[in-house]
Amino acid sequence: MLKEIASHRSCRHFEERPIAPEVLDEIVRAATRASNTGNMQMYSLVVTTDPDIKKQLAPCHFNQTMVTRAPAVITFCADIYRFSRWCRLRGANPEYDNFLWFMSGATDALLASENAALEAEAHGLGICYLGTTFYNAKEIGRILQLPDGVIPVMTLVVGYPAFEVPLTDRLPVAAVVHQETYHDYSDEEIEAFWAEREASDETAGLLRENELPNLARIFTERRYKGDDNRAFSRAYFDLLREKGFFNQ
Amino acid sequence: MLKEIASHRSCRHFEERPIAPEVLDEIVRAATRASNTGNMQMYSLVVTTDPDIKKQLAPCHFNQTMVTRAPAVITFCADIYRFSRWCRLRGANPEYDNFLWFMSGATDALLASENAALEAEAHGLGICYLGTTFYNAKEIGRILQLPDGVIPVMTLVVGYPAFEVPLTDRLPVAAVVHQETYHDYSDEEIEAFWAEREASDETAGLLRENELPNLARIFTERRYKGDDNRAFSRAYFDLLREKGFFNQ
Repeated sequence: MLKEIASHRSCRHFEERPIAPEVLDEIVRAATRASNTGNMQMYSLVVTTDPDIKKQLAPCHFNQTMVTRAPAVITFCADIYRFSRWCRLRGANPEYDNFLWFMSGATDALLASENAALEAEAHGLGICYLGTTFYNAKEIGRILQLPDGVIPVMTLVVGYPAFEVPLTDRLPVAAVVHQETYHDYSDEEIEAFWAEREASDETAGLLRENELPNLARIFTERRYKGDDNRAFSRAYFDLLREKGFFNQ
Repeated sequence: MLKEIASHRSCRHFEERPIAPEVLDEIVRAATRASNTGNMQMYSLVVTTDPDIKKQLAPCHFNQTMVTRAPAVITFCADIYRFSRWCRLRGANPEYDNFLWFMSGATDALLASENAALEAEAHGLGICYLGTTFYNAKEIGRILQLPDGVIPVMTLVVGYPAFEVPLTDRLPVAAVVHQETYHDYSDEEIEAFWAEREASDETAGLLRENELPNLARIFTERRYKGDDNRAFSRAYFDLLREKGFFNQ
């Protein structure tokens, strides 16, 4: 397996050391080599290294210290704005202000982000994906001055790891991969997929700490709760409409 | 730059040669090493090699011959079903049937797909992303027997390239990458970004063939038209609701 893929992990603690401009440049160039829809490149990257702007972004990511500590914060956005500008300059009528093109731009942005992550790791850097981007996309957009037609999809923090962290476990491959068509699971299979993680010392510690009887309830009652999920869903969907991605 | 990233291209013509099972296995293992939301792995891959099923899938991808010719077709899906099954077995109440978790699962699936693409290329294989997956997701889901809570997001065709194709050009990196915050473009900048592609022999040929005065109008009037964009947007969004991803 490609070394960078096999050893990929999330890094949440960084040295203060900055990233050389030529390394950052190589990372964003790697991002743009990913496949994209129709080669229209309906996405943009915003590379933020300025401490003041990172400080403004931090609350959008629940003040996780890695946002201010990491030397670079890269926000990946779906962007129908730039392409539409070009169309109008040419007397063409761009009709990309709809859900399909939000999804296409988001896809382009996400494929680009994975290239950026792997390229960063090839340079000895560590990265972490910030799923909080969906939660507070409106405020991120305000800070980064995104125009209509541009919406944040994902953020990567990038920097030199303060220390090495272990690889994270995954479900068995058979849990995630289906042969030919989707095969439904028996209860026994579902239980087997999660058995190792449920039996781990880490889980035992979490159960004590959270005073809950099992790991699933830590997910549903502590980490990703219904009310939060629905509130963030509505906020992001409203932003899609507001930013001009939902004229169906 | 990582060799696989630098030399990545779309491959649309394949040899008949099948892919060894251990190589396919390495590709899907590479996919599962990507970062994912909360390590909940809210995605599934369906690996289709059966000629009959590939034949059924082909019309969903506008009968592009690569779908039947490529030895493997991998459909990447957002999947809240498996995780929710586990929650219910543990007496936990999974509330992931909303837009946030569609986006999270789609993100997981897309990051995994880029790993799969690069790993495939490291084995001398060629790949092509099929954006048509969004257009006909409902029919793809029927063929692949996806349950509620599972929706196709992207498809990769994988196989040994019949011949080498050239790298595709990209807009200049400065078109896509913004420093610190988003910087709006002048008309002159937009024109400069597209100048090389507009002046190319390939574009000249397309203009003659399409009897149109410029490249932008080929995109808006031939390739990605408003009525189609809106129809596919509605269809995919309706499917989100139908498959249980939009209880806000």
